[in-house]
Amino acid sequence: MRILICFLGFSVAFGQQKPMEFVRPFIGTQDVGHTYPGATLPFGAVQLSPDTDTIPFSINGKYQADVYRYCAGYQYKDSSIVGFSHTHFSGTGHSDLGDILIMPNSGPIQWNPGTSSEPQKGYRSLYRHEEIAEPGYYAVYLDEPKVAVELTATERVGIHKYRFNEEKQSHLILDLTHGIYNYDGKNVWCFIRVENDTLITGYKQTNGWGRTRTIYFAIATSKPISTYHIKDVKPSTYKGFWRKFDTENNFAEGAGQGIKAALFFGAADEIQLRVAISGVSIDGALLNLQSEAPISDFTYYHKLASASWEKAFSVINNVEFIEPDDAINFYTAWYHALIGSTIYMDVDGKYRGIDQRIHQADGYTNYTTFSLWDTYRAEHPFLNLFYPKQNADMVESMQQHFEQSAHHMLPIWSHYANENWCMIGYHAVSVLADAIVKNNPYLKNPKYYLDAAQSTANQRFYEGLGAYMDLGFVAEDVSGSSVSKTLEYAYDDWCIAQMAKKMSNDTLATYYLKRSENYKNVYDEGSGFMRPRMSSGAFKNTFDPLSTHDQGFIEGNAWNYSFYVPHAPLELIKLMGGQKKFIAHLDSLFTMELPDVYFAHTEDIMREGIIGNYVHGNEPSHHIPYFYNFTSQPWKTQETTRLILKDQYRLSSAGMGGNDDCGQMSAWYLFSALGFYPFAPGASYYSLTSPLIKNATLHLDNGKILHISAPGNSAENVFIQKVSFNGARLTTPFIEHEQLLLGGNLVFEMGPKPNKNAFIIK
Amino acid sequence: MRILICFLGFSVAFGQQKPMEFVRPFIGTQDVGHTYPGATLPFGAVQLSPDTDTIPFSINGKYQADVYRYCAGYQYKDSSIVGFSHTHFSGTGHSDLGDILIMPNSGPIQWNPGTSSEPQKGYRSLYRHEEIAEPGYYAVYLDEPKVAVELTATERVGIHKYRFNEEKQSHLILDLTHGIYNYDGKNVWCFIRVENDTLITGYKQTNGWGRTRTIYFAIATSKPISTYHIKDVKPSTYKGFWRKFDTENNFAEGAGQGIKAALFFGAADEIQLRVAISGVSIDGALLNLQSEAPISDFTYYHKLASASWEKAFSVINNVEFIEPDDAINFYTAWYHALIGSTIYMDVDGKYRGIDQRIHQADGYTNYTTFSLWDTYRAEHPFLNLFYPKQNADMVESMQQHFEQSAHHMLPIWSHYANENWCMIGYHAVSVLADAIVKNNPYLKNPKYYLDAAQSTANQRFYEGLGAYMDLGFVAEDVSGSSVSKTLEYAYDDWCIAQMAKKMSNDTLATYYLKRSENYKNVYDEGSGFMRPRMSSGAFKNTFDPLSTHDQGFIEGNAWNYSFYVPHAPLELIKLMGGQKKFIAHLDSLFTMELPDVYFAHTEDIMREGIIGNYVHGNEPSHHIPYFYNFTSQPWKTQETTRLILKDQYRLSSAGMGGNDDCGQMSAWYLFSALGFYPFAPGASYYSLTSPLIKNATLHLDNGKILHISAPGNSAENVFIQKVSFNGARLTTPFIEHEQLLLGGNLVFEMGPKPNKNAFIIK
Repeated sequence: MRILICFLGFSVAFGQQKPMEFVRPFIGTQDVGHTYPGATLPFGAVQLSPDTDTIPFSINGKYQADVYRYCAGYQYKDSSIVGFSHTHFSGTGHSDLGDILIMPNSGPIQWNPGTSSEPQKGYRSLYRHEEIAEPGYYAVYLDEPKVAVELTATERVGIHKYRFNEEKQSHLILDLTHGIYNYDGKNVWCFIRVENDTLITGYKQTNGWGRTRTIYFAIATSKPISTYHIKDVKPSTYKGFWRKFDTENNFAEGAGQGIKAALFFGAADEIQLRVAISGVSIDGALLNLQSEAPISDFTYYHKLASASWEKAFSVINNVEFIEPDDAINFYTAWYHALIGSTIYMDVDGKYRGIDQRIHQADGYTNYTTFSLWDTYRAEHPFLNLFYPKQNADMVESMQQHFEQSAHHMLPIWSHYANENWCMIGYHAVSVLADAIVKNNPYLKNPKYYLDAAQSTANQRFYEGLGAYMDLGFVAEDVSGSSVSKTLEYAYDDWCIAQMAKKMSNDTLATYYLKRSENYKNVYDEGSGFMRPRMSSGAFKNTFDPLSTHDQGFIEGNAWNYSFYVPHAPLELIKLMGGQKKFIAHLDSLFTMELPDVYFAHTEDIMREGIIGNYVHGNEPSHHIPYFYNFTSQPWKTQETTRLILKDQYRLSSAGMGGNDDCGQMSAWYLFSALGFYPFAPGASYYSLTSPLIKNATLHLDNGKILHISAPGNSAENVFIQKVSFNGARLTTPFIEHEQLLLGGNLVFEMGPKPNKNAFIIK
Repeated sequence: MRILICFLGFSVAFGQQKPMEFVRPFIGTQDVGHTYPGATLPFGAVQLSPDTDTIPFSINGKYQADVYRYCAGYQYKDSSIVGFSHTHFSGTGHSDLGDILIMPNSGPIQWNPGTSSEPQKGYRSLYRHEEIAEPGYYAVYLDEPKVAVELTATERVGIHKYRFNEEKQSHLILDLTHGIYNYDGKNVWCFIRVENDTLITGYKQTNGWGRTRTIYFAIATSKPISTYHIKDVKPSTYKGFWRKFDTENNFAEGAGQGIKAALFFGAADEIQLRVAISGVSIDGALLNLQSEAPISDFTYYHKLASASWEKAFSVINNVEFIEPDDAINFYTAWYHALIGSTIYMDVDGKYRGIDQRIHQADGYTNYTTFSLWDTYRAEHPFLNLFYPKQNADMVESMQQHFEQSAHHMLPIWSHYANENWCMIGYHAVSVLADAIVKNNPYLKNPKYYLDAAQSTANQRFYEGLGAYMDLGFVAEDVSGSSVSKTLEYAYDDWCIAQMAKKMSNDTLATYYLKRSENYKNVYDEGSGFMRPRMSSGAFKNTFDPLSTHDQGFIEGNAWNYSFYVPHAPLELIKLMGGQKKFIAHLDSLFTMELPDVYFAHTEDIMREGIIGNYVHGNEPSHHIPYFYNFTSQPWKTQETTRLILKDQYRLSSAGMGGNDDCGQMSAWYLFSALGFYPFAPGASYYSLTSPLIKNATLHLDNGKILHISAPGNSAENVFIQKVSFNGARLTTPFIEHEQLLLGGNLVFEMGPKPNKNAFIIK
């Protein structure tokens, strides 16, 4: 708790607080969590947050750790702030965004940010961790120049307040060249116009992780700009003519690969900005500005932001925790689960599609940032349960992506009108299936979703999918990470089968159910592991089940990935030698000692993100603790998830053992803390575990109220004695989604020792 | 005539031909005319034309003559064709465009164009001048590969037909990196999508003369594309993931700084393409495609193109020339006068504004390419008289530019949503004033035009305008070409005064009339020339009235520019010492021998473009031959304009002695050939001269018919004996615009010797 208090900036008094008051946006902002502390609304298009560094990509094109380090633009331990930019990923494992940086400064104009070791040589500033970060609000005091900064946001507009405490020539730097993952050449083009003395518009176009990404902006100032300077303007190529003008000083228009501006406001001691963004056009940004933030009033927008978060948190209340501190992790996870995917359309419903054309969202809200390899597991099921409208609109956003895709595929990893093809699988089908199977009432065009899933699952060019369809497995010599791909394709195919079944298309259901058995084709009975195979059919000769490096797997090793058959757990247990052997194998995963040499190859996680050889910091294992529920020893699920909840989520800026991954790590926490988890999204059941809470009231979207209670729950009483729902005892460690939707009372009776008869195992 | 026939490709039979059959698009395509021979409609947005070369800008950034040489992409003497691109300036003095190049090829794919000296090393091809060029149609046979090419166009769609005569792997190259003035780095970004096997879309964005120019396209093929290859795709920066795919072969989407594609069609021996363009969006290009060219039928579009030109030429008929060959120059000039400014909006009226935002043209057609320093002189007056609707819409296009301009200025030299600031003055006000003073009935918002003109004339940052307003002249030490600027600003101010007067705003009229006298401030009585002055008020010490180089003038010397007071000819005559002295001075201009050393400094014209020291190839002198009408010797206007008509416009690809400048050179020809000229646009009168025609019937837009006849006219009978209009003898060598609009008969009686009493001089 010591570390936490140090960065809270205000004291914590547990008790009568609203849920959002427990949120600590700083959790995960150190090391690998890759969260950001700045101001945003639930699913807000603007994420206005301080950037402490954005190391350029190296000249020789080699991947650099520091690019990874600054995925969210901010690292808690850094001592200087470069400025405040408007777009940030939450918890990703790769980086982009950081658009439209604003930074107050004084004295002579400094056009470059300077370095962390010599901050005085640029416009960046030292700061102290007297920051305040709340949902929708961020404040910091900059040491040099002495400026009090406050940030809040509407959905599409960043609201800034700068109070200058010095007499020196105070001004604001607008740096359009700034960006996250800002390698040389990322900026493709910038455009800026001083429309009048309180309005600046323009756009910025980048070739980053999003290959062709353009963000338009409109900046309204609370006081008139007295003079301004625009740097690095690129003239028309007929240079002779441009040289006739002074295009740097008070010249109302500029364009070029990179553009910076310095805005002076006379003797003003406080400047407020409203910075609207749009993926569509300058007109879109102006429309967003006029619709969401027509007047200059920081306090008003701050109140609106708080109200917006309060409404989002109204889904849950009356939560009682075993330890008061758990409230912080719980509500912070809830917060992070609501900022992974974000709105990507203007207030009039216009948005830029993957085809780079402008579309009209017809009766839904268009979203972007789909880190699907991560979020299909628990994040989307979480939203589907508690925020079904938003999840249905995300599904429709994916469907529209499909309809606009030249490759006729649902998104793999998409952001801001770009497919970045990151990671593997075609897990959008899982999100679609989960929403369909669970009867999400807001689904817009479910009859088209099966077509989209089918088309996606049959694109031979994609990642060994041709070989998978021909051979029944991805061959390692055809496409790397072949085992991971085979297993995940098999699961995805099962999801398609569930959709087809739900829609009474038996032919398709049978076809994809058959394809979903392909996991068997990479099981090596000899080693007892899933193992890469070659086109010849033979298993790959060299094989080390502990290695994650170039061995047929990605973000995991054979130990972890061999459990990746969420859609057929009983069949897997059988395949791996039956209950007894399987349980022993599973036990080993959590208890074995992983030599450091293997950890060195494990991406994206801290040493602390590992329990034995179980890697919670990476996603492929997230369902594994729940595997015990399919054995005779469900209590091991209970003690393991409790261990993970306490061990892997800590009250610290470095509290996350791996990337939050757009809310997936947080959603795992939330489900597990509430006592149930979507073991196989696309299936209608949840797998039960030992809840972390003692009581919680959930206000479901259908108007029903679900009370979860865990009488006797404590740090020691981690074992379920029995579970009842609305008075009836549950005979399996599973509960149906439809049951939860009825509302009522889900009661976990807890005790210090396993009750081996807590459930009657089927 | 010999040269001409060589490039006609078909024999000429004078007599019963339609006007458009006399048009020879090849005139001006050699050396400095800078016209193009390809297919376009009147004011058509597509100019589909062969490019024979586009030499890159040199690395060290030095201006290169070859960039100038290929302003229109085509030089008649070149022996190879690089390909066929969709946008071309007509007759400009600087270059850009050349967008979306298509070239047929066979055998192994050649991704680069190769060089003119080694055409076989690239996709370019040798060709013979068996070309056919007609209004709206162009055909050529390529030697290697053997392909018969035909091109036509709708307003916004280029129509291609390729007949392959070889069995080798025939294919089409689509080179988005191609462009005119294609220096390294001009291409900012390209995007391409294979929507389906007969449709490709995308865009290309450049930083050329137009600083921020984007052209969107949609290409429909007559036969299915069997396989395709996309070159130089730029991946997302997360290269590891992109390397997983083969993004070059049949991968449906590409983007990057430069993109090329090769399209294969199986065994097809004929491929037709319809290539729609838009300045707005891919959707705009698709809309243009569907609206203008929904089906594949080359012959149909060729007929439409011919019909469109026939309609445009229906303004004039029954023309009888002194020499049959004059018909070719006359109708070719008429053709060139109708392709200088071009439509810049989609069929639904959407267009991109100077503010880079999308606007809706409300009740008018939006145009672009305003080379105003040239075209205000005769081109816009020509359109204002014979195509008043188009000219009114051009005026409104300029007004909208003003309303979107961050600098609050009307266009100076604008093209494709860009102000390139080329040349001097603010001559849009002349175009506005001319249309207002001449009561153009189609003017849309005349009440706003005066505001726009005023705002434009008071931007102190612009080209010494602040000094001009303070001192009464542009000081040479403040802004170069100071005399040219002072004189042209003064004329422009007079234009504003005419607008104000017409609108009964006497205060403004008086103010600008006073400013229009500023020409007097640069007259040096000592030398008898207009001469640069310094801020101190003193004339610049060094002064050579023959030099055009860095002496206070641009595209002219003191000899020519000293006559640049079109708005106050009588006052100028007085200023320069009275009639006798003035006439002698004027005579000298046409008869003196200009040493070669001075010609070396004269841009944009051929040695042949000079008569004495009179430079017809540059525009500042275009009114000078008509100055004699303000003296006692108007017959010298008559013999001089006749000399220029015959000497400066020749029946040859090299027939133009200077750039056609978006039709200005051609419009000079047309007015002069018809016997009258707009000496001072913004004034209501025309200045009369010896017509080149013997008879002509002009069908005015108001329904009236104007017959011009010149009984006795011949190569020798160049002198006006008397002029009558509708039976009444004219007593001055001037005629009012309103008179011509009445229709009727304008009769020039011609003779071999000057009739010194032809007019009673007032």
